[in-house]
Amino acid sequence: MARFFVSASNIFGGVAYLSSSDSEHLRSLRIRNGEVFTVCDGNGTDYSCVLTRSDRDGAEAKILGTSPSVGEPSVQVTLFMAYAKGDKNEHVVQKAVELGARGVILFPSRRCVARPEGSALAKRILRLSRIAEEAAKQCGRGAVPTVTALDSFEEAVERASMTDVPLFCYENETDAGLKAALDACPGARTVSVMCGPEGGFDPAEAGLAVERGMRSVTLGKRILRCETAPLAALTAVMFHTGEL
Amino acid sequence: MARFFVSASNIFGGVAYLSSSDSEHLRSLRIRNGEVFTVCDGNGTDYSCVLTRSDRDGAEAKILGTSPSVGEPSVQVTLFMAYAKGDKNEHVVQKAVELGARGVILFPSRRCVARPEGSALAKRILRLSRIAEEAAKQCGRGAVPTVTALDSFEEAVERASMTDVPLFCYENETDAGLKAALDACPGARTVSVMCGPEGGFDPAEAGLAVERGMRSVTLGKRILRCETAPLAALTAVMFHTGEL
Repeated sequence: MARFFVSASNIFGGVAYLSSSDSEHLRSLRIRNGEVFTVCDGNGTDYSCVLTRSDRDGAEAKILGTSPSVGEPSVQVTLFMAYAKGDKNEHVVQKAVELGARGVILFPSRRCVARPEGSALAKRILRLSRIAEEAAKQCGRGAVPTVTALDSFEEAVERASMTDVPLFCYENETDAGLKAALDACPGARTVSVMCGPEGGFDPAEAGLAVERGMRSVTLGKRILRCETAPLAALTAVMFHTGEL
Repeated sequence: MARFFVSASNIFGGVAYLSSSDSEHLRSLRIRNGEVFTVCDGNGTDYSCVLTRSDRDGAEAKILGTSPSVGEPSVQVTLFMAYAKGDKNEHVVQKAVELGARGVILFPSRRCVARPEGSALAKRILRLSRIAEEAAKQCGRGAVPTVTALDSFEEAVERASMTDVPLFCYENETDAGLKAALDACPGARTVSVMCGPEGGFDPAEAGLAVERGMRSVTLGKRILRCETAPLAALTAVMFHTGEL
């Protein structure tokens, strides 16, 4: 069923008020007055709605009933992904939303070739946020995952370290596996998955991450591309916590 | 380290003989006489080699030593993927090789929009096989996964059913999870992962698959795209068997 995110403040008096761009999207899906679709408040509640008005300025839908959103996993996983070339960040954001990530945070790393700044970065984050929203609608999430950027690797490590299981995916790690790291923290509610750019992390970066409390882990014996590694690690965490 | 696949019959007398296209690839990587790279026989053995000759007709490399290839997982997973639009089959083949699949088999399904046949299909399989070889070189596999096509859904089900754990990933399945299906078959050596096209499987197809012994499984509460589902299931199997 078609799905739209509407902020809780635009749902009142038994009616959901949709924006002009949502109205346009309703038209493109050929949803007409009297037809039923889902509105989600991005906060864990789904509203079954029937369209009552739709024009260029917006749309209104009468609420028929509510139910808890089922698309939010019990574990909150944040992906920390280094800036990558081409459309790799875009690809990872789209798939990460489907696979259940709570958010994606981009950061610069020593071997990053691409390193957007200023207005180019602002445009990119806006574009990635739109991709996240589209993916969240399509796959049935109960909230739109956030996409943000940090100024430095150090800041990313600091932020990642604050979660229950801060995973640092490092290609030079040979021993420590993902499963052991997850098994060591039963009942963990928050997980960070940090992955490097095309050329991998610099050893000094790995040293700093471990010093700050991150768990360096291998993703197996095959070398995963920078867009494959974060999604593989995210999938493994979701599988391990019964979300897949 | 650069990696090339050479058939065992071209490795003899302490020398590996590489094709003209491999020779071209060596040049593009700027590997010169005296430099060391890896040759794999695609059968579980890696050869550390030093380049001794390279021209338009081919290349020769002296073997310095051998070691078992480490890139082959202990479990053999075959992905069965329905024909998909755009470059989704290509995307899945590349990532499946990195993630350790033994092979990818394409098949038609009722809701497939794309359904290549004849010479178009032959060209496509050739292209996908090249993508598999490139990915196998890049990620360090000990064998090049095969890419093949079957004429019908029934044939695909028959082939998939022959493995120890034949998984049928079905979006209308609500109960049976991937983990339970894998746990039910400890020590399994071969696994099939079958996923449908953009519109999902037809219920009649799901019925047939289960009737023929496949295990219908859900991939969680979020709707995964047709290119995300096979990679998520493959990753989960690899993680479950200690390969990730």
